[in-house]
Amino acid sequence: MVNPFFKNHGPFKIIELIQILKLKDLNIDLDLEVSDVADLYSSKKGDITFFHSKKYKELAKITKASFCITTENLKDELSKNCIPLIVSNVLISTSIITSKFYPDSLHDNFDDKVDYIDVTKFKNTVKYGKNVLIGANVSIGSNCSIGHNSIIEKNVIIGDNCSIGSNVVIRNSIIKNNIRILDNCIIGKHGFGFFPNKDINMRYPHIGAVIIEDNCEIGCGSTIDRGSMSNTVIGENTYLDNQIHIAHNVKIGKNSIIAGQVGIAGSSILGENVKIGGQAGISGHLKIGNNVEIGGGSGVIKDIPDNSKVMGYPAKNFKDFLKENR
Amino acid sequence: MVNPFFKNHGPFKIIELIQILKLKDLNIDLDLEVSDVADLYSSKKGDITFFHSKKYKELAKITKASFCITTENLKDELSKNCIPLIVSNVLISTSIITSKFYPDSLHDNFDDKVDYIDVTKFKNTVKYGKNVLIGANVSIGSNCSIGHNSIIEKNVIIGDNCSIGSNVVIRNSIIKNNIRILDNCIIGKHGFGFFPNKDINMRYPHIGAVIIEDNCEIGCGSTIDRGSMSNTVIGENTYLDNQIHIAHNVKIGKNSIIAGQVGIAGSSILGENVKIGGQAGISGHLKIGNNVEIGGGSGVIKDIPDNSKVMGYPAKNFKDFLKENR
Amino acid sequence: MVNPFFKNHGPFKIIELIQILKLKDLNIDLDLEVSDVADLYSSKKGDITFFHSKKYKELAKITKASFCITTENLKDELSKNCIPLIVSNVLISTSIITSKFYPDSLHDNFDDKVDYIDVTKFKNTVKYGKNVLIGANVSIGSNCSIGHNSIIEKNVIIGDNCSIGSNVVIRNSIIKNNIRILDNCIIGKHGFGFFPNKDINMRYPHIGAVIIEDNCEIGCGSTIDRGSMSNTVIGENTYLDNQIHIAHNVKIGKNSIIAGQVGIAGSSILGENVKIGGQAGISGHLKIGNNVEIGGGSGVIKDIPDNSKVMGYPAKNFKDFLKENR
Repeated sequence: MVNPFFKNHGPFKIIELIQILKLKDLNIDLDLEVSDVADLYSSKKGDITFFHSKKYKELAKITKASFCITTENLKDELSKNCIPLIVSNVLISTSIITSKFYPDSLHDNFDDKVDYIDVTKFKNTVKYGKNVLIGANVSIGSNCSIGHNSIIEKNVIIGDNCSIGSNVVIRNSIIKNNIRILDNCIIGKHGFGFFPNKDINMRYPHIGAVIIEDNCEIGCGSTIDRGSMSNTVIGENTYLDNQIHIAHNVKIGKNSIIAGQVGIAGSSILGENVKIGGQAGISGHLKIGNNVEIGGGSGVIKDIPDNSKVMGYPAKNFKDFLKENR
Repeated sequence: MVNPFFKNHGPFKIIELIQILKLKDLNIDLDLEVSDVADLYSSKKGDITFFHSKKYKELAKITKASFCITTENLKDELSKNCIPLIVSNVLISTSIITSKFYPDSLHDNFDDKVDYIDVTKFKNTVKYGKNVLIGANVSIGSNCSIGHNSIIEKNVIIGDNCSIGSNVVIRNSIIKNNIRILDNCIIGKHGFGFFPNKDINMRYPHIGAVIIEDNCEIGCGSTIDRGSMSNTVIGENTYLDNQIHIAHNVKIGKNSIIAGQVGIAGSSILGENVKIGGQAGISGHLKIGNNVEIGGGSGVIKDIPDNSKVMGYPAKNFKDFLKENR
Repeated sequence: MVNPFFKNHGPFKIIELIQILKLKDLNIDLDLEVSDVADLYSSKKGDITFFHSKKYKELAKITKASFCITTENLKDELSKNCIPLIVSNVLISTSIITSKFYPDSLHDNFDDKVDYIDVTKFKNTVKYGKNVLIGANVSIGSNCSIGHNSIIEKNVIIGDNCSIGSNVVIRNSIIKNNIRILDNCIIGKHGFGFFPNKDINMRYPHIGAVIIEDNCEIGCGSTIDRGSMSNTVIGENTYLDNQIHIAHNVKIGKNSIIAGQVGIAGSSILGENVKIGGQAGISGHLKIGNNVEIGGGSGVIKDIPDNSKVMGYPAKNFKDFLKENR
């Protein structure tokens, strides 16, 4: 489930979108309605999608979207039912269209609609500290506690038996059951995603959420950013130590253990039962297999297959690392 | 002094402990009382201790404990006055017994017994900001200040002339004299210690404290975790920069200087007059000597003798590092 | 502009300064007044300056200062209009004199003069959350928002269209226009600058500010320390990700992009359009050119010329890094 939270400001007529993208000479019915924006896989009839790399051509062939932002080079790979909109930069154009549908997902100003918890329905169902704030569209299960000065901003679902520490900020997140989030964490803020641009960068929207599965623990001072077009996911029974940074769209499998000050860059996918030593870093868009062990301080810059043990910068087979550094 | 803070819920009859550990066929007086749990060195007559590695056999020979959780292989090394309790995993069994004596040391939910400082005895003796909270069993010396939104949870002793910043959380800690703790620090939370277990990990109790000796400074956003069976100690006149993570049981000697974003993993012992450059990491269970210099970015994975200068990942002699990287 | 904020407690008669430095036998008019302390370049007639390294001899020749703290070896390089004060350690003596002029710049206790924003003049001009605190000498432009629990301590200038998150602490800073500072940042605290000294270190004063130019974004949990004798500067349209540490006196050029958990040590100067990957570290007192790319995890320990791409620890030419690590 992507985008459980952001309000879709559509539908829009296709002519509106064409005008925003400054396209012309399109031989289509300009009154057609566009319902939503989504990726090639998730989009439905009536949606607009995007296709920017040959890597996705199998998905492009079968997408159900009615429109697709793409390039001259890629357009012939598209499903015959999908009308291509040819642009020079697919991702920037997609960002512009996504911002049109979901304008609230672009910037994360503080949530000014929160209330003190003691004037909300959670007054008698949650154990809470001083100065706890609750936004709109929040649900909290049974037997939960929320520490002092913590802010549950809008769009947060918290399950049962969760312990939230003090000075925590959460928004746009699904926190399942039996989860402990320690002090000073910031969960669900937008990722570090933008198009560099002289004088003024162009931020792209983050319509994904953070999903933390059952039985996880998140250490003090950690930051977990929400996804852009997908979710950021922490798998069941995965423990994060203090001062960890998990970037947007990252997915971590279950039963994983991540030591202090680790950083995982955007869109990397980690398997189950992964162990990562302190201060290790994982570059973006990588695939780390199941049962992988990554030594402390490692810098991982390529995919790692299942059942591997690596260490070093760049990370390599653990035995090779030891041999070279005897 | 270990465990200055946690309430001992004992004594328990040995039969209760035996039942929890699911042991049988023990030919001992089941009515014997057990007063406390402690390590081989600290335990007294009537206590239960644990012995899990040959490394500690000299201590095992002379322990004063009446009972010892250990293995079939190790039991013959034990003092004749100490009754062995044979288990398959000593540390897990010890964790279970420690949780029985000290159930409050297992999880760190927020302290819901705090009061605003202006209704406490510190109203006229401490200089304080807005929204400062004070827990039970807190003492604060003369000439101290505590910044806005800071939370001194239960079990904290603060000496004289201390300056605590804003948004700080402290619990289970002894902060001696003339110490500055800057904004957003989290001090005294439990360490990242647990036994991995499919579906649901098993946390182990942390009954130690954080002790910060005189004249220290702790930079913004740092985290110092309390010890499990020993204390985490920052030596006199040691300065920590911003965003540093000190894990459980670490001991740092006096007059040391630790630059920004350094991480020190659990149970490592550092000598006096140690200098550590920014972003360096030190693995767990290491011994770093006196007067050691560790270059910025280093990853230390083995012991370092006194008076050495190292750099690199893994850290090596500084001159060798320079030579290899000319 | 250095030191826009700290109150100069001078002028002092030169005899007072001479006594503090424990100098004797100076054949000068002891009633001469000294207005201020500044570096060789900025100081004016009537000021005292310092000169501790041959590197600065060209500036020493033309300084307008009336007095200069220096050494026997360097004193002959000084302008003839400048009276040398010969000391054994120039930087310690300068620190002592600076503390005399600017005693408030030495330690950063919490700002106890703040008010809740709703009793200040910003009540109707700023959009603000719960529990927002404002210190003395603060100005805030139009269309700004400040999140819950944030503390704008004394000496802060905020321009127009700025969005400050929750749990943020700012002091001694100039935040220009269209800037977003996300949750939990600490901006403008003193740097990690002191003279190590057995038993009790000697902090040196930080009279600089943090200046953040237009259109910047600062990620969650970042710390930016103010300068000692100069300012810390983040250039226009530069974006910082989460958990970044920028030390005192650092200057970063415009249009730069700095990924999560990067640390930049004191006094390094970065050019424009610099891109730094996650967890990279840059040592102190370095010069990084324009259009430089630094790979994630790199440890930069020497200057980098314009238009270079580097990676590794220590960082080297990117192609060499790849070749060596194939």
